[in-house]
Amino acid sequence: MAASNLEEVLQQSGNTVEMLRNSQLGAYVYPVVGSEFSNWRSEQAAWRDSAVLFDQSHHMVNIFAKGPDAVRLMSELSINSFSNFPINRAKQMVPCSYDGHVIGDGILFHLGEEEVVFVGRNPTANWIQFNAETGGYDVEIIYDNRSPSIPDGKAVSRTEYRFQIQGPNAWDVIEKLHGGTLERLKFFHMSSMNIGGKEVRTLRHGMAGAPGLEIWGPYEDKDFIRDTILKEGAEFGIIPVGSRAYPSNTLESGWIPSPLPAVYTGEKMKPYREWLGADSYEAVGSIGGSYVSDNIEDYYVTPYALGYGPFIKFDHDFIGREALEAMNPETERKKVTLAWNPEDVAKIFASMVHPEGPHYKYFDLPLANYASSNYDKVSADGHDVGFSMFTGYSYNEKTCLSLATVDPDVQEGHEVIVTWGEPDGGTSKKTVEPHEQLQVRAIVSPVPYSTTAREEYAEGWRTGKA
Amino acid sequence: MAASNLEEVLQQSGNTVEMLRNSQLGAYVYPVVGSEFSNWRSEQAAWRDSAVLFDQSHHMVNIFAKGPDAVRLMSELSINSFSNFPINRAKQMVPCSYDGHVIGDGILFHLGEEEVVFVGRNPTANWIQFNAETGGYDVEIIYDNRSPSIPDGKAVSRTEYRFQIQGPNAWDVIEKLHGGTLERLKFFHMSSMNIGGKEVRTLRHGMAGAPGLEIWGPYEDKDFIRDTILKEGAEFGIIPVGSRAYPSNTLESGWIPSPLPAVYTGEKMKPYREWLGADSYEAVGSIGGSYVSDNIEDYYVTPYALGYGPFIKFDHDFIGREALEAMNPETERKKVTLAWNPEDVAKIFASMVHPEGPHYKYFDLPLANYASSNYDKVSADGHDVGFSMFTGYSYNEKTCLSLATVDPDVQEGHEVIVTWGEPDGGTSKKTVEPHEQLQVRAIVSPVPYSTTAREEYAEGWRTGKA
Repeated sequence: MAASNLEEVLQQSGNTVEMLRNSQLGAYVYPVVGSEFSNWRSEQAAWRDSAVLFDQSHHMVNIFAKGPDAVRLMSELSINSFSNFPINRAKQMVPCSYDGHVIGDGILFHLGEEEVVFVGRNPTANWIQFNAETGGYDVEIIYDNRSPSIPDGKAVSRTEYRFQIQGPNAWDVIEKLHGGTLERLKFFHMSSMNIGGKEVRTLRHGMAGAPGLEIWGPYEDKDFIRDTILKEGAEFGIIPVGSRAYPSNTLESGWIPSPLPAVYTGEKMKPYREWLGADSYEAVGSIGGSYVSDNIEDYYVTPYALGYGPFIKFDHDFIGREALEAMNPETERKKVTLAWNPEDVAKIFASMVHPEGPHYKYFDLPLANYASSNYDKVSADGHDVGFSMFTGYSYNEKTCLSLATVDPDVQEGHEVIVTWGEPDGGTSKKTVEPHEQLQVRAIVSPVPYSTTAREEYAEGWRTGKA
Repeated sequence: MAASNLEEVLQQSGNTVEMLRNSQLGAYVYPVVGSEFSNWRSEQAAWRDSAVLFDQSHHMVNIFAKGPDAVRLMSELSINSFSNFPINRAKQMVPCSYDGHVIGDGILFHLGEEEVVFVGRNPTANWIQFNAETGGYDVEIIYDNRSPSIPDGKAVSRTEYRFQIQGPNAWDVIEKLHGGTLERLKFFHMSSMNIGGKEVRTLRHGMAGAPGLEIWGPYEDKDFIRDTILKEGAEFGIIPVGSRAYPSNTLESGWIPSPLPAVYTGEKMKPYREWLGADSYEAVGSIGGSYVSDNIEDYYVTPYALGYGPFIKFDHDFIGREALEAMNPETERKKVTLAWNPEDVAKIFASMVHPEGPHYKYFDLPLANYASSNYDKVSADGHDVGFSMFTGYSYNEKTCLSLATVDPDVQEGHEVIVTWGEPDGGTSKKTVEPHEQLQVRAIVSPVPYSTTAREEYAEGWRTGKA
């Protein structure tokens, strides 16, 4: 009988790791937005040198929560403190499972009285919806799903457009659009501004130390807002960023978007698995990379491992609190950037034009991930010391970079080995062609990697100053 | 004053070559179709090893011509003979300018009594429409333009869907769909078949020697036909090919899709330039590559240079006939494949991860073109001997290949030099990042490059047997 929920899918598969490693889902796509508006090198360069327009309207879920318990729901699902979360404030919300492993993360916006919206990947949105429906909360949920990966010419619409204006010239663009000085609020504070005579809501953001804004509004205004920004911003060198360059920006700024949601095991998570559909992200998503363990729990990561240690506040009750209280932060893994050895990277590319082989796993540019969640083995002195979880290329740094989580004793400046490619010729994932593995040397480096970002980000997990 | 037609655009620019080399159009996009359905390596491998579904519904213009003069119009614009062109026959139609240079090419289908359709790029379609409107023909034209390059979530529709079923297992898929034996007509003969209970029209095609079909019908049937083919063809290993792999198939089969249309000069072509819009393909298109001449006419190519010599038949009157009659085919350039030196290709890729440089022009995979028309300088013994006009990578051959037109004395097996990248750091085209040039060695090779295609294509320009 066909499985009707995730729990049944797992029962029928018998081996969760093998199922996810051989998912037939295909690539994790950043949908709808044009691939390149100029070219991905120039688009990467623009966020470092001038200004860019990111179009984030399509690749994330919006989950709107309204009602007296909207904030309490989010608080009880989050490691984060809600002691200071007034209207017009946002936070990077991190929910964990009962055993203290990350389910996902994303941005929670406090939109108004009893009204919030979470913006992020499906796993967190699903978990929020499940708890809203089953946890006895007085809250109404609207699940505005991400756009289809391949619309194939069919019309796509969302509730809202969502843009970011970023880069060193971003504030010049913003104040010209607004028609005057705009207060540079603190990071993740919300306000509003004028664009072409329309008032739009804003979230103070930033990139590589330069202040920027995220803006949103009704989807039907999208083209007008976009065209106005690009026209007015032209004198400051603003260019739109396509879907090919967009997701690679995190290699420089240091956010890991794609941990495996820690939902596949545990009796306490079973009702959730029975609630999740057989076609849910969790059931059809994929794991890619060289790290293989029989135990799916070995793929779970703690908030510490992703750099979210500073977010954990035991000032409220939340799912996973007890498990996190029992952890020793000093022995948990930590987030780093890995700077890949150029000679080894060159070997990967050169192997493409060697008819006799060996052929290494194709490294797509600028983003080399080939699964929903990416787990490449990182080793030092012959021992496994962590996972490399998001891999690609920075034209600004002229370097292949990956974001990794490694044992606490792995020191910056030291060399580690990333195993690139899957064992035994590769899995049957649609994104995988037959290949051999290559041991790639990499230097353990700060996160964020970008020197300017490290020095100029005011606060938050990027600098560890939160 | 803003230019209102191509002629005015050229007058205002003053330098046609510089204008086209610095076009701000951006990449030549294969629109709407998903980028990758599995991954471009596996999709390339499938057309060699099993079977593929090409979706050609969006990237070409359909120009429907109906009326007593429909065939005469096409004949008077074509180097091709129409002495044997009954209904249900197709031909690769090649129109030239008065001076015998190629304007473009594409497929002309004889659909019915006084009814044909041309399918191809804009330059040929524009030329057909102009002549239909101004040449005193009794013919009605419908110009069904290619889909927008970046639909951005807006609905896209065409008059017809257009698919190809290709690869060594294609005929097994086709006969299973049809529900019985289907006659293997000659190349470019048309017929019909059944798919899921619907009768669809067919064009006998083929790839690498294996028979295949192009099929088309009303656009509203597209999803049904596609789903039926993929479902029934699964047992024969058919997979859909995305827009990333699709245009690279010609590197193996040997068609050059993108010569510069020879319309920018000549008094006799002036009325056409005055008819063409200031936003036409001809006005906004781009030239990319290392070949630079002050004279736009140096970019024009003859039918001989593109391998269409066997098509030229002086059995009818056509535009360009006198000029072609005056040419000596023996001294005209010829089409070849260039197999790029793997060490030099590896240098291009390695330069990406060398922060100090030099940085060579980014080579995108599997298609490396960065303009509407591509002209890289090919030299031998220090002398220019031709252009390299379509460049990319074949996973099947594990080799970077380009299609070129070279002097008649350039021999197969000899080494030539392709200059990769533009002089002086590169033009201002949106697809171009700052770079230096690299001299890439390449072996002059047969066209089509694929050994099986060379040996098994029954007839036509691919084998020179037409």
